[in-house]
Amino acid sequence: KQYRIAVIPGDGIGKEVMPEGLRVLEAAAKKHGVSVHFDHFDFSSYDYYEKHGQMMPDDWKEKIGTHDAIYFGAVGWPAKIPDHVSLWGSLIKFRREFDQYVNLRPVRLMPGVPSPLAGRKPGDIDFWVVRENTEGEYSSVGGRMFPDTDREFVTQQTVMTRTGVDRILKFAFELAQSRPKKHLTSATKSNGISITMPYWDERVEAMAKKFPGVKWDKYHIDILTANFVLHPDWFDVVVGSNLFGDILSDLGPACTGTIGIAPSGNINPEGDFPSVFEPVHGSAPDIAGQGIANPIGMIWSGAMMFEHLGEKEAGKSIVEAIERTLAERTLRTKDLGGNADTTACGKAVADMVD
Amino acid sequence: KQYRIAVIPGDGIGKEVMPEGLRVLEAAAKKHGVSVHFDHFDFSSYDYYEKHGQMMPDDWKEKIGTHDAIYFGAVGWPAKIPDHVSLWGSLIKFRREFDQYVNLRPVRLMPGVPSPLAGRKPGDIDFWVVRENTEGEYSSVGGRMFPDTDREFVTQQTVMTRTGVDRILKFAFELAQSRPKKHLTSATKSNGISITMPYWDERVEAMAKKFPGVKWDKYHIDILTANFVLHPDWFDVVVGSNLFGDILSDLGPACTGTIGIAPSGNINPEGDFPSVFEPVHGSAPDIAGQGIANPIGMIWSGAMMFEHLGEKEAGKSIVEAIERTLAERTLRTKDLGGNADTTACGKAVADMVD
Ligand SMILES: CC(C)[C@H](C(=O)O)[C@@H](O)C(=O)O
Ligand SMILES: CC(C)[C@H](C(=O)O)[C@@H](O)C(=O)O
Repeated sequence: KQYRIAVIPGDGIGKEVMPEGLRVLEAAAKKHGVSVHFDHFDFSSYDYYEKHGQMMPDDWKEKIGTHDAIYFGAVGWPAKIPDHVSLWGSLIKFRREFDQYVNLRPVRLMPGVPSPLAGRKPGDIDFWVVRENTEGEYSSVGGRMFPDTDREFVTQQTVMTRTGVDRILKFAFELAQSRPKKHLTSATKSNGISITMPYWDERVEAMAKKFPGVKWDKYHIDILTANFVLHPDWFDVVVGSNLFGDILSDLGPACTGTIGIAPSGNINPEGDFPSVFEPVHGSAPDIAGQGIANPIGMIWSGAMMFEHLGEKEAGKSIVEAIERTLAERTLRTKDLGGNADTTACGKAVADMVD
Repeated sequence: KQYRIAVIPGDGIGKEVMPEGLRVLEAAAKKHGVSVHFDHFDFSSYDYYEKHGQMMPDDWKEKIGTHDAIYFGAVGWPAKIPDHVSLWGSLIKFRREFDQYVNLRPVRLMPGVPSPLAGRKPGDIDFWVVRENTEGEYSSVGGRMFPDTDREFVTQQTVMTRTGVDRILKFAFELAQSRPKKHLTSATKSNGISITMPYWDERVEAMAKKFPGVKWDKYHIDILTANFVLHPDWFDVVVGSNLFGDILSDLGPACTGTIGIAPSGNINPEGDFPSVFEPVHGSAPDIAGQGIANPIGMIWSGAMMFEHLGEKEAGKSIVEAIERTLAERTLRTKDLGGNADTTACGKAVADMVD
């Protein structure tokens, strides 16, 4: 079968790292006999918005809704266009309308990337953050009353549904069960957030009963972030709500040296809709246009995409090529103490793929 | 004048570290000619709850409401009594009913405490986290619908009031203005939490206009936690909502080696009600009763209490005594690689006070 991939570079460094991502995917596809077809789209970007007054065409769902996956660079250019227009008009729209209820991010200390945590070596930090990606704290329910007076107040509801909570927990427990350590950690804050978080805990307990082989524990989010720094070796699979998962999946990569190389998948596990694979980093207006952005996050996201499509060998070969590339100082980009530019780094990974 | 301090040891290690806190306060009071009277209370503890079926007497407000400050150990014993009873029945009640709208915590890398962050030395990390302590995400508004069905859903409102947001921002800007760097960082997440957080941002911008001497910036909470690990030297005063402040004030101390030594103040700046000073750590049932708990968090909280009361010199002398004690390995408790027990460590600090 030939995979059809929708390619959306987006904004800023998204456009610079995308060619390297594609270069590596093509190299791995060739080596492993995977057939891929890429369709390129210019929407979900500031340029498109400037021309059309909206982030995406009206028929965006038809355009990319039947692809096997979406390979996405970065979106957002806050100085030019407000976040609620750019992000809510594309990235968050995908998550909601394509029901990508899993946001999946590896936290892995790679060779050649100095950890900001004293004495940690590759192998010491290796876990997954599983984030609920459609509901929770990112709701659209709320509002403001008595504007511009002393009585002014604003509310926003966190919303957790049985369906929404159970399906993300099931995904996380299944992932834990598939791993050697079979260990799941739930992020909560039921001692302070007294209505939604106790519900989350309750559903974790119920789900745990269905996975007797998985050891599980829970931490309040405050001490959990502390433990990411103090005991990153404690974790195997960490599951959290939309907000807690968001926090942990930036903090985790930071603990492994940089969010510049971290990948992510916005996944609809049932395959009813395409999943989106994108680097964790944003469009980085401050360094855009200089050709120095680190392409590893984009490339690694490509590996996750191949794995998601079932092309495990091709995906694995990319991750191994990333590891070999990062191990060589001269092949790393400036942010990691090397002197390669975006293209040189991307080419190095593509060459290493076998 | 003689200060009247209400002393509440609470649960677990709270009872073990409290005597050391008092020992040091007495030593500093003596050296600096401060007159203090301590009133001891046994409520806000599991023992009290067992006897009386509630955490505090009905007239708790009369009992401790006119003291100059409350010196508090730790509360909570989750295996015996649910958090929503113990915490919401005491600690969080104090915060709300005594209008302690500021939660203030220093993040400072101390001599002798190895930082988990590679290459950071005392002096590199030295900032304050200012947390809104009465509203925000810790609201009591919400509920559950369609229980035990597939349609079940749970909501909880985050609530931000003009009064609540403005007064915490004012406190934080004033604190920043009083510091050499005059730098304030606001924790937000307005790109994802689309109603309350943009309001927070708006109020920060408005307040900033009143403090033209303060440089300020803002980060989304996800990247902010990453920056605590990657660039802790960037921060001077960090202000956040109830939840974000809670997270940052555990993560910050973790970046400086341990939450075991971190102090906090729950402050009513106007002085209409007493403020509560307590270590950041909890009752730690796992090590309670062994006499090995680190008393520094309790002691440092006492220093903050003296400073709050206006006894700057006495407060400073305690912080300096803590620094000198921590610098000696043999005077540190086990959690910091030393071999002193709780009492030996407390006595060492008391001896060092000058
Ligand atoms: C015990 C808990 C409710 C409390 C909080 O979240 O406020 C604690 O974490 C703190 O920071 O004082
Ligand atoms: C850009 C922002 C809305 C987004 C989020 O919070 O989900 C980002 O931080 C992420 O993690 O993908």
